[in-house]
Amino acid sequence: MSGEFTYKGAGVDIEEAAALVGDIGELRQSTEAKRSLMQSFGLFAASYDLSDYREPVIVTGCDGVGTKIELLLEHDQLEIAGKDLVAMNVNDILTTGGDPLMFLDYIGIGAIDKVKIKRLIGGMAEHLASCDCILAGGETAEMPGIVPDGVIELSGFCVGAAEKPDLIDPARIEVGDKFIGYPSDGFHANGWSLIRRILEANPGLIDEEEWVQFLAPTRLYHDVVAGLRERSIDIKAMAHITGGGLPENLERLLNGKGADITIPRWELGAVAKVLSFVEDAEAVKTFNMGWGWVVVVPASEAEAAASFHEGARIIGEVDSSGEVKVHVSS
Amino acid sequence: MSGEFTYKGAGVDIEEAAALVGDIGELRQSTEAKRSLMQSFGLFAASYDLSDYREPVIVTGCDGVGTKIELLLEHDQLEIAGKDLVAMNVNDILTTGGDPLMFLDYIGIGAIDKVKIKRLIGGMAEHLASCDCILAGGETAEMPGIVPDGVIELSGFCVGAAEKPDLIDPARIEVGDKFIGYPSDGFHANGWSLIRRILEANPGLIDEEEWVQFLAPTRLYHDVVAGLRERSIDIKAMAHITGGGLPENLERLLNGKGADITIPRWELGAVAKVLSFVEDAEAVKTFNMGWGWVVVVPASEAEAAASFHEGARIIGEVDSSGEVKVHVSS
Repeated sequence: MSGEFTYKGAGVDIEEAAALVGDIGELRQSTEAKRSLMQSFGLFAASYDLSDYREPVIVTGCDGVGTKIELLLEHDQLEIAGKDLVAMNVNDILTTGGDPLMFLDYIGIGAIDKVKIKRLIGGMAEHLASCDCILAGGETAEMPGIVPDGVIELSGFCVGAAEKPDLIDPARIEVGDKFIGYPSDGFHANGWSLIRRILEANPGLIDEEEWVQFLAPTRLYHDVVAGLRERSIDIKAMAHITGGGLPENLERLLNGKGADITIPRWELGAVAKVLSFVEDAEAVKTFNMGWGWVVVVPASEAEAAASFHEGARIIGEVDSSGEVKVHVSS
Repeated sequence: MSGEFTYKGAGVDIEEAAALVGDIGELRQSTEAKRSLMQSFGLFAASYDLSDYREPVIVTGCDGVGTKIELLLEHDQLEIAGKDLVAMNVNDILTTGGDPLMFLDYIGIGAIDKVKIKRLIGGMAEHLASCDCILAGGETAEMPGIVPDGVIELSGFCVGAAEKPDLIDPARIEVGDKFIGYPSDGFHANGWSLIRRILEANPGLIDEEEWVQFLAPTRLYHDVVAGLRERSIDIKAMAHITGGGLPENLERLLNGKGADITIPRWELGAVAKVLSFVEDAEAVKTFNMGWGWVVVVPASEAEAAASFHEGARIIGEVDSSGEVKVHVSS
C-alpha cells in the first residue's frame, strides 16, 4: 500500500466539485419563481409534486447542441450554449402540449473550470426562468483524458406534464389544415457540421461583429403555445424544426399525408452568406430556413394563429401527396 | 450557390441515423413487457400515463459512466457500458422510493457506427428490461471533429414516479438506526480516473482473463427495494454508493448526524490488486468498497433487512458525531 495514488492526484477534485454544487444552487433558485421542487437539492434525485393534476401524463426528451458547441467555445459564447441546450429540450416537450417542469444538464469536461461551468449554467438558468422550467439537477463529470482540452460535452433532459385531454394528437390532422410558421433567430442548434465546413472553406466569410448574432441561441416557443391557448385555437400538431429541416420534422406528424409549403428566401445577414453556398434542396433538408416552430391548425383558424405573433405567417397546407414539398420563393 | 456542400459530405448521414432509429425500436420493445409508453416512438418526446396514480410525485436524475468508458471501449465491453449507464441512473431514482419508469440515453460519437451503438443500447435494454423501466428515447449525436475517434460520450436520464406517501424521507433517521450494506459487483462506474492511473503505472496488473470481471457492470438494486417492501420493512433512507464513497453518499442523508461503520477488507480478485496501491482512507472516499447500496432501518428491523438478500449485512449505526467514520477491518 502507498499514498502515491489519490483521486485528486488523478485529476478529480471532489471538494472543488462540491463547492460548484453550491453555486449552481443559486442559479437553480432563479428558475423556481413560479414552481418549485418537492425535495431539497443535493439528494440523489429531484422530485416534483403532480398530485394536483387530475389525469397527469408525463413527457420527456433528451437532446444536445450538436457540433455548434465547437464554434460557441471558439467564440467564448458559453451562455448561448446553455440557452441552446435548454431550448432544444424544452421545445421538444412543448410540441406534445406538455408543460416543461424540470430540466437536467450533463456537462463533460476535462478539468472542472468553475467560471466556464457557471457561465454555461447561467445561460441555462436564464432561458429556464423565462419559461418557468426548474433547473432540477444534473451532472458535471470531470473526465480527464476522455474529453479533449478546450472541449465541453453537453447534453440535456427535460420532463414535463400535461393533463391527458390537453395532449396534442397529430392523428387529428386533415387535408386542408394549414401550417403556421413562427420565426427562428438563426440556425439555432442544427446544421453546424455543414456550416463549419463552409466556414473552413471560406475563412473570413462572417465579419467579426456578425458572430454573436450568427450564433444566436435557439428560441423558446413557450410564448407561442401560450398565445394559441389563450385564443382557444385548435392546435392539431406542433413541430420543433431541428435537424432534417421542415421535411423530416413535419413528416413525422403527418402519418402518410403530405405538405405543400412555400417560404420566402431566408435573408438574414450572415445566415444568408452561408446559405449562398448550399443548394436550396439541400438547405431545406438541413436548416430551419427561418422557421423554428410550425403549428398545424384548421384552415378557419389559420389567420388567428398567425396574426398574434410577430413574424408568424401561414406557410402551407396539408395535402394527400404523401410527401413534404418545400418551395423557396425568390 | 453550388452543390459542393451537403450535410452528408460534412459527415452527418441523416438516412443512416433514421435506419438506426428503427433498430433501436426493437430494443425498446424488449423493455415494455410490463408497462408501455402512451404515444408512439418517433415523435419529439415520449409520454407515460400517470392518471392511475392518486398522488403522483415524479423523480428524476441524470448521470454518466465517467472515465470507466475509456477502459470499456479499450476492452470492447460496450454492453457493460450500456448497463452501467442504466444502473447509475435507475439506482438514483430507486433511492427516493420511486419506481423508475422511463430512461433516455444520449450518445455522442464522431461517426455513426451502427454495430457499436446497437451493442451499447442492447446492454441498456437488458438492464432496463430486468427492472421494467422503458427505454423511452434518446439522442445519438454524430459529432465529427468534436468527439475524438474511438471515444463514445454517454449520458443518461431517468424519470420515475411514486405515490406521495411512499416517498422515502431521510429526515426520519434517528440515532441508533442501522446501516445495511448490499454488495456491489466491483468498482461499478466510479473511481476509474484513479484506477486508470494505477493501471498505467502498473501495466499487466490485471490478467487477461480477469478483465471482464474487473469491469463488471453496476448492479441494479430494484430487487433489494422490492424485497424490503415485501417484508414491510421501514425504510428510512437508501443510498447509491457512487463517487465520494460511503462518506459522501451517506453524509447527504444524515442531516448533521453521524455514522459509525465497519466493513471488512474488500477481497475481490483484481479489485483487491488495485486497492493494494491506495491508502484505506483514500480508498474509502473514492470507491464503494464492496457496498453499492446502503439502507437505513430501525435497529429492530436490521436483521430482517439484511437476512433476505445474499451477501447483505449490518455495517454500522447512526450516531450523533456529525461525521461518517468508516473503518476497514483487517
